[in-house]
Parts: sequence; structure tokens; C-alpha cells
Amino acid sequence: MVRIGIVGFGIMGKGHAGNILEGKVPGCELTAVCDTNPKQWEELIAKHPNIATFEYATTMLKSGKIDAVLVSTPHYDHPIIAMEAFDHKIHVMIEKPAGVYTKNVREMNAKAAKSGVTFGIMFQQRTYPMYQKMREIVQGGQLGALKRVSIIITDWYRPQAYYNAGGWRATWKGEGGGVLINQCPHNLDLWQWICGMPKRITAFAHHGKWHDIEVEDDVTAYFEYENGATGIFVTSTADAPGTNRFEVLGDMGKLVCENDKLVHYKLDVSEREFNKSNTVMFGHPPYERIEVDCSGEFTQHSGVLAAFVKAINGEGELIARGEEGINGLMISNVLHLSSWLGKTVELPLDEDVFEEELRKRFL
Amino acid sequence: MVRIGIVGFGIMGKGHAGNILEGKVPGCELTAVCDTNPKQWEELIAKHPNIATFEYATTMLKSGKIDAVLVSTPHYDHPIIAMEAFDHKIHVMIEKPAGVYTKNVREMNAKAAKSGVTFGIMFQQRTYPMYQKMREIVQGGQLGALKRVSIIITDWYRPQAYYNAGGWRATWKGEGGGVLINQCPHNLDLWQWICGMPKRITAFAHHGKWHDIEVEDDVTAYFEYENGATGIFVTSTADAPGTNRFEVLGDMGKLVCENDKLVHYKLDVSEREFNKSNTVMFGHPPYERIEVDCSGEFTQHSGVLAAFVKAINGEGELIARGEEGINGLMISNVLHLSSWLGKTVELPLDEDVFEEELRKRFL
Repeated sequence: MVRIGIVGFGIMGKGHAGNILEGKVPGCELTAVCDTNPKQWEELIAKHPNIATFEYATTMLKSGKIDAVLVSTPHYDHPIIAMEAFDHKIHVMIEKPAGVYTKNVREMNAKAAKSGVTFGIMFQQRTYPMYQKMREIVQGGQLGALKRVSIIITDWYRPQAYYNAGGWRATWKGEGGGVLINQCPHNLDLWQWICGMPKRITAFAHHGKWHDIEVEDDVTAYFEYENGATGIFVTSTADAPGTNRFEVLGDMGKLVCENDKLVHYKLDVSEREFNKSNTVMFGHPPYERIEVDCSGEFTQHSGVLAAFVKAINGEGELIARGEEGINGLMISNVLHLSSWLGKTVELPLDEDVFEEELRKRFL
Repeated sequence: MVRIGIVGFGIMGKGHAGNILEGKVPGCELTAVCDTNPKQWEELIAKHPNIATFEYATTMLKSGKIDAVLVSTPHYDHPIIAMEAFDHKIHVMIEKPAGVYTKNVREMNAKAAKSGVTFGIMFQQRTYPMYQKMREIVQGGQLGALKRVSIIITDWYRPQAYYNAGGWRATWKGEGGGVLINQCPHNLDLWQWICGMPKRITAFAHHGKWHDIEVEDDVTAYFEYENGATGIFVTSTADAPGTNRFEVLGDMGKLVCENDKLVHYKLDVSEREFNKSNTVMFGHPPYERIEVDCSGEFTQHSGVLAAFVKAINGEGELIARGEEGINGLMISNVLHLSSWLGKTVELPLDEDVFEEELRKRFL
């Protein structure tokens, strides 16, 4: 049995504990929890008195009571705690985002590689069969060369009451951003996981546009890929009801994922080939419309944890390697930086400039 | 009977003639056609020998054979011919776009107002019941204050064979642009007709990206409204298959028009009000999903012409007043200018700068 400890026992930490205690994650047991506010674990301990409790991560990591740690603290601490765990040869699963700035996360990734432990990140949307299919089709080459990516992910509605609840939330110093760093890590990861990393981004972020917060709650971006493909990314926490639409166009067709349905428009011959050979003035490349079968279980958080436990035991692969967290975070950092500087920013970004600009915003 | 003459007897001119000759436009008759290339009307005259023919618009306008002229020449000539017609007190229906640059079109509009004749523009997509419903809902205030507009109109596929067919097409000097000036006038008009005019635009246009042409065939833009609403506009003539999706979000709900279906997400209370009064951390404003009944006839070009004839007889309103053509064209000009200058451009634009930049591109 892999003995797991959870650091950061807020909403997410409690959710993970529940999954383990309900037996949804085979091969592991919850042996310790840690939070600087002991009130957070009072209820748990009343029911499960043999789970060890800690106020400080360091003490838990040195306690000998855990083989693996699940880090669900505020984002700034993810790399700090992960790096300390690597020193103790403790396996690590971090919540997304991997951290707040890539410089920090790069350091974490380097330490992870040296330590040899299992290092995962909680991208549970990768367990959604629809996104797995999208990735299979795009990365498997069925869409041909990438031409356009359109992501409208405005269904992260959060009322002012949400922002009023947590002290560290929606501040530059406490959280490092708004919708990009809190709600969008999923979508930024899916974007890069399915389509690959863009090359440059021009972003327009609006800070405290819809809520009494200092960080962004509305972002629109235009981006380009190395091969010339372009795209848009739109997000907000004030659209009611919002939209969740992910469209990918390639040389060989198109995928549209919306309303829990994935439609594949499949060309027989690539558009680029058709364009060259066709002689009909208003000719169109013929295509087939396929509703993709996306049956299969959406295992969510417990699926990611179960794969982590198997990976520790050498019995399987992670859903998301911890090192991959830097990709979505880099897009997030570039979205912020482009918007702050009012200009297009190339990837990889200048990490020192980003950190400097972020710190300028600390109140 | 209103006697109509058509100037410019290419694909569009022949289409309009067909509608009139097939009796689809009550109250008018086709009495003259004009094209600098007589081959264009040879076939028509073989069947209808009493239709007068002209090589030059001036001669037709002075002939006394027409009460109204339908201008379907290349775009640069629309204002020139319209202004000459106004001098002769001849009613005018121009094809879209109104012209190539707003400076010119502004002059045409001023002359139209002085002449007192009936002046219309061929925005036949305004006769589509779905767009009429969208306008009714947005302009009628049912969506509340505008928050976001998302227009993806990439289903204007054109193969290289299309561009190879016409000499004036897809050149700066002959046509004044690519997808924005040729295919998009519809969509730019619907955008402003339904949502109103944006205040500033940042555009990214790619010239000859997918075709052997000098003008743009792929454009993405970010825009803002005076009230802070934002949006995206994406178009291309190389997406296969493309997308035609028009989403409008307001304070009181959302409209999504795609796949010939209009869905209205209707809030009971405005999101802004909900945001203030709600105390539930993950609360969402409740809404109703309505598939809007858009039955009714899509009368297209003949519907626009029929309304024009009625308006001439003082029996009804135009579908689109000629003067309104400047709005979509201004958006088009700003999209070009922003992309050429590599910066955000405010509306109304500096018309001299636009003309100067356009002329720089003449080969």
C-alpha cells in the first residue's frame, strides 16, 4: 500500500481525501494530512483518528509516515513543497497549476529528474474520453498539419461571493493571477496536450472588469504556431451562461468539441492538395461528418491518483507527468506578460522579465 | 412599373437579371443592361431583344430608359456610378461593399441625401429570419448590455481556381482587398446591424497565406466596444470545412447562431445584479434555454430588390438603406489598417491614412 499524505486541506485537499477514503484509489491509503489551519482537518480526524496530522509540510515530509505527497496548497507553494519532497525521496502529485512562474517550475522539474521519484500533476480533464479522442486524432496525424485552433472557454462563472471567500484568492501576491492561473490551467494544458505549444501570443486581459478583484477575469488572445497556424483563446469568469467550445482545424479536416459532443469533419484529400489540383471555380474539398464515439469512463481526480499509485509501483504510466505542467503555465505566463506589456510575446518567454513584472503588481 | 437597368453584368448582375425576368420582383421590369464587355449580355439579348444595352454607365444613366440602377460592378466603381445616378435623379441599389474606402462612400452618402432618390444596398443576408430574430433580441434589449461578441465565419472557402478566374479579383488595385472586402461585407454588416459598431480593433491579417494572391485570405481580430464589451472576428477562405458561428453575450443572456439554429439562453435576472446579490460561493444565475422559432421566408436578393421597388413607390421600407453600407466598410477598413500598421486602431478611422496605406499596396 502506498501511504499518501495531503498538504493543503482546503476544498481540493478534502476532495482528494474523500476519494481515497471511499476506496476509489486502489493500492493506497491516506496516512497523513497537513494544513497550517488545524480547523481544516478537525472533522476528518474525528472520524479517522489514526490519520496523522501536521501543521507544517516539512514535518510531514520527514515523519516517515508517507511514501507520497499530494500537494493541494495555494499555487506558489507547489514547487517549494515538491522540491522538499524530492529531497526526501517522496513521490509527488501536485495540483495544477505547477506553480506561478515557469522559472520556479523549471527548477522543480530539474530536481524531480535527479530524484528519480514518481512525479505527477493533477490534470484530471485528460481522463475525459472526449479530450483523449481529440488528442488521438490530432497527435495521430489524422487532421494533417495544424491550421487553426479556436478555444472559447467562458464557462468558469464565479460570482463575487466566490472571490470574497478566500484571502489568497485573486491577488497577485497570494495567487499570482485570476482566471488564467486558477480556472484555466485545465484548458491551457488541454490546448498544448492536444495541439502542441504555440510560438507567439498577443493577449488582452482585463483586470477586475467584472469583480472587485485586482487580477484578470476576462482574457482574449490571438496566437500563432511555428508552422503558421493561428488561433484564439477566450476566457472569463463572468459570462452567464458561458461557452465551452474547442475547435481544431487541420489540413485534413476539423474537430469541434462542444456540448459534450465531438464532431470530426474528415477530408478524403488534404485541403492543400485539393486547392492545387481543383479546377472548379467554387469547388470545395469533399468531407464526411462523423460524430466520434467517446464512450468510456471519465475517471477524473481518482483516475489520476490511481494511475499515480500504479506508476509508483512500476505498474503503469502517469496520466500527466509533473514535468508537463510547465507547458500550460508558460502559456499562462505569456498571456499575462503580453497583456501587461501591450505587445506580442514569443515563447519561450524571458522568465526574469515575467517575474519582475509579476512582482511589480504585488500590493 | 419601375424600369431597372443593371450596370456590371458579371455573375451577380446576371443573377439579379434572372430574378427580375423570372418575375420574382413585383412592380419592376429590366429595361437595360450595361457592361464594358458586350459578350456578357449577348445571351440575354438573344432571348430578350427589347432590353437596351450599353457599354458605358454614363450613357445608360442619360438614356431615359431607366428609373433605377442596380450597380454590380467591381467595388471601386460602386460610389462613382451611384453618384452619377444621383445627379440624374435615378434611384440606386448598390451591391456590397458600398465601396473600397469610407472617404469615398461618405461622399456618396452625402450626395444621396441631397438627391432625394431611393438609395439601397444589397445586404440580402438581412432577409434571413434567423438574423432578423438576433437583431430583434439584441437591439430590442432582451440581452441587456452587450458583454461579448464572437464571430467565426470561416466558411467562405475559395480554391485557387476561383482567384485565377477574374483579373480584378484579389488585388489591391482592382478589388481593394481579399476576404474582408469580397466575402465578408455580409458578416461585417450583420455584426454592426445586430450588435452596433465597435470602438477599437486589433487585427492580424495574413496576405496570400493560402493562395497565390497579394491580398488577405486569413484574418483574426480582437475588438472592444465603448461600454467595455469585447469580441473576436475570425475569417478565412481556406478552412475546409469552415465554421459559421455568431455568438452574442449580454448581461441578460446569450444567443448562439450556428448550424442554422438559433439558441437563446435567457436569464431571469441580469448577471450583474446576480453577481451583487448572490451569497453562494459557486452560485450561477439561473437561465432558460430556448430554441428560437426562426420560421419565415429567406427572400434573399429578390427580397431586397422587391423592397427597393416598393420604397421607390413610397409603399414600404428598404431592407438596407444605402447609407448604412459605410458601417461594415469602416470595420473592414479598420481591420486592414490595424493589421498593416501592427497596432490597435480606433473608430472612426483616419480616412486619409487608410487611403494612403491602401495606395502604397497598388502594384
